[in-house]
Amino acid sequence: MQLPVAIIGASGYAGVEATRLLAAHPAFELKLATSDRWEDDALQSRLGPCGPAGAHHYAAHPETGADAVRAAQGCVAALLCTPTEASLALAPALLAAGVRVVDLSGAFRLRDARSFEHFYRLEQSDPRLLTEAVYGMPELGAQVRAEISKARLVANPGCYPTAAALALAPLFEAGLLADEPVIVDAASGTSGAGRKATEEMSFTEVADEFRAYRVLRHQHTPEIAQAFSAAAGREVRVTFTPHLLPVRRGILSTAYARLAPGRAARELKQALLHKYAAEPFVQVLGAPDQVGLRGVVGTNRVQLAVECGGAPHDPERVIVISSIDNLLKGAAGQAVQNLNLMFGRPETEGLLGLHPL
Amino acid sequence: MQLPVAIIGASGYAGVEATRLLAAHPAFELKLATSDRWEDDALQSRLGPCGPAGAHHYAAHPETGADAVRAAQGCVAALLCTPTEASLALAPALLAAGVRVVDLSGAFRLRDARSFEHFYRLEQSDPRLLTEAVYGMPELGAQVRAEISKARLVANPGCYPTAAALALAPLFEAGLLADEPVIVDAASGTSGAGRKATEEMSFTEVADEFRAYRVLRHQHTPEIAQAFSAAAGREVRVTFTPHLLPVRRGILSTAYARLAPGRAARELKQALLHKYAAEPFVQVLGAPDQVGLRGVVGTNRVQLAVECGGAPHDPERVIVISSIDNLLKGAAGQAVQNLNLMFGRPETEGLLGLHPL
Amino acid sequence: MQLPVAIIGASGYAGVEATRLLAAHPAFELKLATSDRWEDDALQSRLGPCGPAGAHHYAAHPETGADAVRAAQGCVAALLCTPTEASLALAPALLAAGVRVVDLSGAFRLRDARSFEHFYRLEQSDPRLLTEAVYGMPELGAQVRAEISKARLVANPGCYPTAAALALAPLFEAGLLADEPVIVDAASGTSGAGRKATEEMSFTEVADEFRAYRVLRHQHTPEIAQAFSAAAGREVRVTFTPHLLPVRRGILSTAYARLAPGRAARELKQALLHKYAAEPFVQVLGAPDQVGLRGVVGTNRVQLAVECGGAPHDPERVIVISSIDNLLKGAAGQAVQNLNLMFGRPETEGLLGLHPL
Amino acid sequence: MQLPVAIIGASGYAGVEATRLLAAHPAFELKLATSDRWEDDALQSRLGPCGPAGAHHYAAHPETGADAVRAAQGCVAALLCTPTEASLALAPALLAAGVRVVDLSGAFRLRDARSFEHFYRLEQSDPRLLTEAVYGMPELGAQVRAEISKARLVANPGCYPTAAALALAPLFEAGLLADEPVIVDAASGTSGAGRKATEEMSFTEVADEFRAYRVLRHQHTPEIAQAFSAAAGREVRVTFTPHLLPVRRGILSTAYARLAPGRAARELKQALLHKYAAEPFVQVLGAPDQVGLRGVVGTNRVQLAVECGGAPHDPERVIVISSIDNLLKGAAGQAVQNLNLMFGRPETEGLLGLHPL
Repeated sequence: MQLPVAIIGASGYAGVEATRLLAAHPAFELKLATSDRWEDDALQSRLGPCGPAGAHHYAAHPETGADAVRAAQGCVAALLCTPTEASLALAPALLAAGVRVVDLSGAFRLRDARSFEHFYRLEQSDPRLLTEAVYGMPELGAQVRAEISKARLVANPGCYPTAAALALAPLFEAGLLADEPVIVDAASGTSGAGRKATEEMSFTEVADEFRAYRVLRHQHTPEIAQAFSAAAGREVRVTFTPHLLPVRRGILSTAYARLAPGRAARELKQALLHKYAAEPFVQVLGAPDQVGLRGVVGTNRVQLAVECGGAPHDPERVIVISSIDNLLKGAAGQAVQNLNLMFGRPETEGLLGLHPL
Repeated sequence: MQLPVAIIGASGYAGVEATRLLAAHPAFELKLATSDRWEDDALQSRLGPCGPAGAHHYAAHPETGADAVRAAQGCVAALLCTPTEASLALAPALLAAGVRVVDLSGAFRLRDARSFEHFYRLEQSDPRLLTEAVYGMPELGAQVRAEISKARLVANPGCYPTAAALALAPLFEAGLLADEPVIVDAASGTSGAGRKATEEMSFTEVADEFRAYRVLRHQHTPEIAQAFSAAAGREVRVTFTPHLLPVRRGILSTAYARLAPGRAARELKQALLHKYAAEPFVQVLGAPDQVGLRGVVGTNRVQLAVECGGAPHDPERVIVISSIDNLLKGAAGQAVQNLNLMFGRPETEGLLGLHPL
Repeated sequence: MQLPVAIIGASGYAGVEATRLLAAHPAFELKLATSDRWEDDALQSRLGPCGPAGAHHYAAHPETGADAVRAAQGCVAALLCTPTEASLALAPALLAAGVRVVDLSGAFRLRDARSFEHFYRLEQSDPRLLTEAVYGMPELGAQVRAEISKARLVANPGCYPTAAALALAPLFEAGLLADEPVIVDAASGTSGAGRKATEEMSFTEVADEFRAYRVLRHQHTPEIAQAFSAAAGREVRVTFTPHLLPVRRGILSTAYARLAPGRAARELKQALLHKYAAEPFVQVLGAPDQVGLRGVVGTNRVQLAVECGGAPHDPERVIVISSIDNLLKGAAGQAVQNLNLMFGRPETEGLLGLHPL
Repeated sequence: MQLPVAIIGASGYAGVEATRLLAAHPAFELKLATSDRWEDDALQSRLGPCGPAGAHHYAAHPETGADAVRAAQGCVAALLCTPTEASLALAPALLAAGVRVVDLSGAFRLRDARSFEHFYRLEQSDPRLLTEAVYGMPELGAQVRAEISKARLVANPGCYPTAAALALAPLFEAGLLADEPVIVDAASGTSGAGRKATEEMSFTEVADEFRAYRVLRHQHTPEIAQAFSAAAGREVRVTFTPHLLPVRRGILSTAYARLAPGRAARELKQALLHKYAAEPFVQVLGAPDQVGLRGVVGTNRVQLAVECGGAPHDPERVIVISSIDNLLKGAAGQAVQNLNLMFGRPETEGLLGLHPL
């Protein structure tokens, strides 16, 4: 028997992907997909046929209101594909109604409420939830997986932090990186900005263009630092520079660190291979120029590769390049992966069979 | 009276731009534009009407042979838009024939012949030319301009080094950057790879894609390090990572350094403004996210902006973002700028009136 | 038990899609996927994990040789994703070896050998096969489906003809179109040109560009005319103009005809809805501007819509716009659909669950 | 001495191009460039340095108000780069103030006020102006040029009509086309839609997409029919289908007609060559697949080529493919061409020296 689940915020780009994945998922029944942007029929027609007829219901409830919570009653879990502000209100209400939550926004990712308030310009509504929320990045290890499986509230990681943390965390854990600030230089497709009606994101402005944005103030910076610090067991300082690519989907992250004194360059790739040996979604490739968007977009995969020691000018420099689909492994795919863990399903269920176009 | 000049290698992407610029240049007469790829008529029809009828002659001489040198006889200067290997042979022959040379290849940029051989896998044919060749980046200052104006052989800088050096050189000169390795993370449009018939550079492979290439072994690395070191007055170690963008033209460089102890973040922008106050082609912008490809592609401009001090996690981090058109300021435009200096013309002649599309 | 099948020519863009579809297909076992371009390992690594480990074997046999035929021995069917010339030789050899064939090339689509020779500049090797080959477009109707199910040799339709025939055939069948020449103006993504290493198809040349190609001499012209004529029961004259789009995948066809005297504009949409009422892959949309590439690329779908009667200047003008993914419904997807029919499988098996990116 | 001119609506895409052209024009002084979107400084900084400092003034007057008219007092002419509704009000006011007008909107192009009202859903404010307005397409011939030179009000042609009319008008004039309905199937880059903040025109929605829009109801349909009819000396019926390309600039038009009985296919190209022999902006190319966006975008050029007689299936079919930059020859470039004629300047002044990127 399928478990009933809900999606709140189904019309955003990540919401659409989540809806498609869950509508086709063998273990879950998508009982409810709400949107405050599209009416019922629009939602149905925009998403298209995405599962057995009648298997799910598209509603047009206001996302943030009590209506959405009431409609989700009876579901075992809800995916919040809502803006951070909406998630801050919805998550406690859903939990109170006995609905487990995977939140795709930034509402519950940062342990440090002050950092959250600094970067998001929002107040943490329920700080107790911060200690309860589990940061849902399964590949970080067995303990994280165990926590996710029991969690009432999973904070689904951000897209850039997913790409960056999966690249460097194993190296920090293995003590392979020197204690100096790390740089994450990354680029994302436009769907990362969400469904937008702005001149700035219009085709005529974005095409043939490439530029950085939110330099030194992007809200994923503390999330990346938190993930690196947790893996290193010490505070890691991070500079993060996102750029906007003239493509629709995909993130490529180029991270720069330094080899720890006394360690050998060859240990880096070994650490990645060891960490990810059994991971179905992680591909450790042989060279950084093999990592790209086209091998991951449309899938829940991560591709990564490390390089060190080749530079005559700076031989201890470590470069790790990683890529993901910002809407799948960076959002809806990882959310379904977490949902699988929360309900004792195989972690890959409903996530294989995707392939790049 | 116009001065007769020649272009050897007119069919490459930089060669086409050089041909257009010189065909329309008030001070120079494009006597000869050779290509070993296109026949005479093809060259004419591909380049289109680019100047007063009859003002120039398109020839189809083999680029590297004695024919090209003979045909250029009587020209006061030749622009070599040829591959590095061809330039190694052509430049000495042209100089011997009394023709001054602006070489757009990498043949004469690196002072250190061993570094050249390591990165280019070619032998320096005439090492004496290395001491004579002037690195032609006028905005580096009055002394460089003076050297260019007298040079017989100008090594026209590489595209990535132009973007990176103009961004950081003034900060090194002013002693504002700490003595630690610098990172240059950059992305280029596909025309930087030249006119190519490879599956790898086909539209179907490049579109919707973004990836790094030649990581830790790109031949522009030592050129960037040389420029930084010259400005700093000490050896600067550099890590350079180029990426391939799914756009045709333009380079964006994101450079990472650290503020020197005791210096203030506000000095950075002041140094840039001071250095470039009178430069017609350099725009120092107020914020890094204003720097992009669209403001420079089609022009000989450089856009740049610096950021520092905003990061809670790493307050001394310095980020300088710069952009150029890889075919103009990164190749043909800068070459014409150098040619203007070599013949006592106003530096901007033939280079204004260009604007982005 | 799964039926063993082979793919000859797995490295072309359609071959890659066919390989993915069959590797994941519940009813077929992909025993063999050959390529003369990629070595064994390259094939495996390029295609990525595309099914249960060990379920299939990637070989690097020369595509056109006896080796490929020998290796396919024991398979119930082979998909030929080979150039027309190779298919002309391979198909008879495979049939002689008892292997049923779905040929994705143009080798066996045209009934008229002279027309084939005119447009393909190749000689028909085995004209008897022309009478045996079944044109595999299932949505043309129950009789076509019956023929496909019994066929030894299926000629899989071309991409443009698929888009055009599914748009107009129902209207010809219903006698709704006047007896005058028809225009098919269409545009395709670059993957339609195949995996190419030419300057003409390089990113730098194709990006920001749009142009027609093979005007009045494209080899799909007689195939479109043949399909229209079969549906109309009379000879239909066709002008077909393909254009190259700066996108990777997808075809949009805009077809122009005229309403037959005495018929009403509203009958047009009714005819389409009636014809396709039970078709799982065909979506008849309400307005032509709803038909696009993004709704079909990545799927085996066809989208179409008809418009007539709105033009004050030419009220009998009929416009039918249709779209497909040139690599799926226009190649590999339709081939698997045909394979399903040939072996008594549900027609949609292995073809649902695909969705657009 | 330079003649003072004004641009009303300088912030739209055509307005920006017009501003650049006039700021650099030797014969005109851009006294005023107004925008109701950008403030004064923004206008200056967005447009960049586009002429001798101080040579022009950027103002932020409300476009449609009396302010704009008052500010334009003393100018010999104004370019209206305003929406049709705004032009309907501004043009009479400017003319009353003694300022000649080139209007880039659709306000005064259609002779038939009812057709205007049907397609534009606006009422013609001053029908007398319709008889006075000159349709400003100089290449239509000497008489049109004479009318433009004396006109108080020039209706600058639409982008699609420019591409279509220059392609077919000479053939209609020469009596080479049969009296049957004509089809114009065309595709435009996104800048044709104007500066837009809509989800529909966002990069994420437009990239990788291609679709038709406003099928059978685009407002350029009657304008194209009017131009064809004028050239033919009889009413020509037209079906026009515009498509949206995922590129920023450029229009390609593929027009379908039929050879008149008794005429020969070779006369078609002869007629084009004869008509355009002395035209500096028109390139008659040898084959339709040579016509593309890349050869015209960034210039005031038209490229065109005709094909007929090659189709075995429909030998009298005539195809004429033409291309322009929608913002230059399709808007601002043609407007400056008209302005040159109105003030006795060489028609190409300020319009040469542009070249494609």
